Amino acid sequence: MEASVVVASNRAPVSFERNASGRLVGRRGAGGLVTALSGVFFRDDTAWVAAAMTDGDRAVALKGRVIEPDSHQRVRYVVIPPERYEGYYNQISNRILWFVHHNLWDTPRSPIFDDATQEAWSSYVEANRQFALALADESDRHPVYLIQDYHLSLVPGMLRELVPDAKIVHFSHTPFAGATYLRILPVNMREAILRGLAGADVLGFQSKQWAENYLLSARSIAGARVLRGGRLEFEGHDAAVRAFPVAVNAHPLRETAATQEAGAVREELRDWRGDRAMMLRVDRLEPSKNILRGFLGYELFLRRNPSWRRRVQFLCLFAPSREDVPEYQTYGEECLAVAARINEQLGSKGWQPITVKVQEDYRYAVAAYDLYDVLLVNPTYDGMNLVAMEGPLVNRQDGALVLSRNAGAIARLGRHALGINPFDLAETAEAIREGLEMPREERVRRARGMARTIQAHTPPTWLADQLDAVDHVRPPSRRR
Amino acid sequence: MEASVVVASNRAPVSFERNASGRLVGRRGAGGLVTALSGVFFRDDTAWVAAAMTDGDRAVALKGRVIEPDSHQRVRYVVIPPERYEGYYNQISNRILWFVHHNLWDTPRSPIFDDATQEAWSSYVEANRQFALALADESDRHPVYLIQDYHLSLVPGMLRELVPDAKIVHFSHTPFAGATYLRILPVNMREAILRGLAGADVLGFQSKQWAENYLLSARSIAGARVLRGGRLEFEGHDAAVRAFPVAVNAHPLRETAATQEAGAVREELRDWRGDRAMMLRVDRLEPSKNILRGFLGYELFLRRNPSWRRRVQFLCLFAPSREDVPEYQTYGEECLAVAARINEQLGSKGWQPITVKVQEDYRYAVAAYDLYDVLLVNPTYDGMNLVAMEGPLVNRQDGALVLSRNAGAIARLGRHALGINPFDLAETAEAIREGLEMPREERVRRARGMARTIQAHTPPTWLADQLDAVDHVRPPSRRR
Repeated sequence: MEASVVVASNRAPVSFERNASGRLVGRRGAGGLVTALSGVFFRDDTAWVAAAMTDGDRAVALKGRVIEPDSHQRVRYVVIPPERYEGYYNQISNRILWFVHHNLWDTPRSPIFDDATQEAWSSYVEANRQFALALADESDRHPVYLIQDYHLSLVPGMLRELVPDAKIVHFSHTPFAGATYLRILPVNMREAILRGLAGADVLGFQSKQWAENYLLSARSIAGARVLRGGRLEFEGHDAAVRAFPVAVNAHPLRETAATQEAGAVREELRDWRGDRAMMLRVDRLEPSKNILRGFLGYELFLRRNPSWRRRVQFLCLFAPSREDVPEYQTYGEECLAVAARINEQLGSKGWQPITVKVQEDYRYAVAAYDLYDVLLVNPTYDGMNLVAMEGPLVNRQDGALVLSRNAGAIARLGRHALGINPFDLAETAEAIREGLEMPREERVRRARGMARTIQAHTPPTWLADQLDAVDHVRPPSRRR
Repeated sequence: MEASVVVASNRAPVSFERNASGRLVGRRGAGGLVTALSGVFFRDDTAWVAAAMTDGDRAVALKGRVIEPDSHQRVRYVVIPPERYEGYYNQISNRILWFVHHNLWDTPRSPIFDDATQEAWSSYVEANRQFALALADESDRHPVYLIQDYHLSLVPGMLRELVPDAKIVHFSHTPFAGATYLRILPVNMREAILRGLAGADVLGFQSKQWAENYLLSARSIAGARVLRGGRLEFEGHDAAVRAFPVAVNAHPLRETAATQEAGAVREELRDWRGDRAMMLRVDRLEPSKNILRGFLGYELFLRRNPSWRRRVQFLCLFAPSREDVPEYQTYGEECLAVAARINEQLGSKGWQPITVKVQEDYRYAVAAYDLYDVLLVNPTYDGMNLVAMEGPLVNRQDGALVLSRNAGAIARLGRHALGINPFDLAETAEAIREGLEMPREERVRRARGMARTIQAHTPPTWLADQLDAVDHVRPPSRRR
């Protein structure tokens, strides 16, 4: 019999709203994390613990656990009071932890920590404790706990105290900051995060580099010791610290591509592209996605290769992101201004070099995947990057992938992608040219190589690897 | 017989100008590096290889080696053509390597690398080669080479090729970037730097943390292997990678403090301070020195402790720095604007909370060291920080030291200083209060502890440790 599984993440796979007749109706959520975890949807006996986001969720929470009619999955909502949620989610998770793990700060000026930071941190601690309590409440069936991401870094340690023999996996979908950069955090926050994570049996990261960064910082915690093979000994308990790169699920992606709506978008885009080549990027409008240098690299490419002018169009699909965070707002405006400037300076009648669409439309993106000749994925730092894997799965042009060497996906796709340093415009421009001018045979070889590699890993194997690791992590004699 | 020593650094310990009668006159240079190395001045048979900075230096270079009349030291100038020097020094060393090692970039926007970067890099390579050739020319007496700092990171490897059995020490006065952050550099630059440094027998850093950061990146070079005890095996040759924290020379510092000029400044400052407490900072006007948050932390302290208003004055002595670098200019202006704003908002008749002096005046600084009650040293990142060591040596108020935990000096002074996270205003404000209100007995104990620790290490012992390490680094049988 397989072990049961309890997933914990900030965002739930479903969210509830009341419909016109006042009934609570669940709607499947989107986002990389839910996509990555969709494999566990198909398991029996899965529960999911997540923060209530809507009044509907909170109403559901009042009734206790929920069984969704069309899956075997139960969702249990943690109701976090709004003020606490603001501190836990917006202040600490999004404006501090996201920034530190992606090296996003302008260190001479930001961040600036003060008492407000410590207050927000208390909210983060309390929200993590609420999660830990909800998870402990699920311990009767001795599940494996799968705790997701930087929002919940304290949960493994807290849950370990509540349920000493719990089987706990924590997985980070983001990068993990290097030891020197992590020292930007207030010392109590840094230590709590390192210790909190160390409470897990298995600490999963998207790539070896991020796993090593965690170990480098963790070995400085009092009482911690790094053992061979990436194991951390801490408080009489071992954690296996390893890379488990996420996978994308080809099936629903192709289903989406096959919908009528996606077909309509494809028609629209085919008309739009005409007989020009098409470059594509699909990203949240996010500073770590390196949108500015993407535009500047494309501009450099056009200036150096004037024969490509009027022969290529760059479609940029941006999902709005954290629009209430001032850094995001400013960055978004700068990006759009640069695109406008380039269109102004390089465009000509009947040809606009860059087309930007800011919209939340997954089907549109999937339809666009089908058609690109070059996909640009150039984040400054990225845990993995799912676009780099979704694109090649859907694309039918044998399109080339220009991929940042600082994205976790490079470990899987580096052989077939055109790797770039995301800070280097010359390299970016050259890779775009190479992608557009690649001989047919090489295009095909690389595109097939990518599709093969991506399909060789699936969410179920990703999950199975973690469950396997948790079974092997500690010899039973060492358990308390 | 002691081995002879050849020092290499960008800046020479002396610089020559023609006087009124056209004769070349040498003048002792200033700066942290020369201070740190002043111990080697007193050795016989030392040569110094450095870039010619002035027409006088270039005239001297034409004549070949120079023996300074009042020391045993010879200076050999490397004449780097102005365009090459611009690329080597301003573009690569100051605007790229300094920034990467101090985590100074606003990564969503800067740096942006392009062909100009690669051109500047060629200049850096060529300038390093000029140094290596000049050093190889000194090999007849089998000296130990002491190569200084990030300007000359390629020299160890280049010199190793020219003189395979050379004894080479490279010392980094700055931090060394963490492995993840170092990946911002173009890959050819990053690899050349890691390999270039690996050519040394001994790689010295200011603290263990920076040494480890080097090793973490270096192990990814093809053919390199990290051995136990911080040794790097690369191309059949071992390098010992270790911390050798620099020391300050108490004697000349106290001599400076005893000059008439310093005495006059002390009088002036005593008048200025009156019976108020005095807080001091002495820094180059430099983004890594964290001047902005220093002001904001002091402001927070004054707002929270209104009883200290009119009872304390903050003297800030800033040496102008790299005024032609736009980032420095902007930063300097922001700093002065914040100081003016605080003075405007919190000052009152007869009391100005902050007094800023932008001037190049070492004696003034040394005189001010004498008088502070609290010395603020809060860099975001700093290889070592000499002010943190000079201050307590000179100070006669049993003044407290507020010291960033990200400065190398924390390893030596952490027990007696008030350690802060430099990004945390609340911690900074609280440490200032603690420093000002510290009971007499504790002040004395800490001040004595610092002075003792600082004096226990001298430039000669710092040098001797490195020479010792180079003698023990490779069993003779392994030499080529």
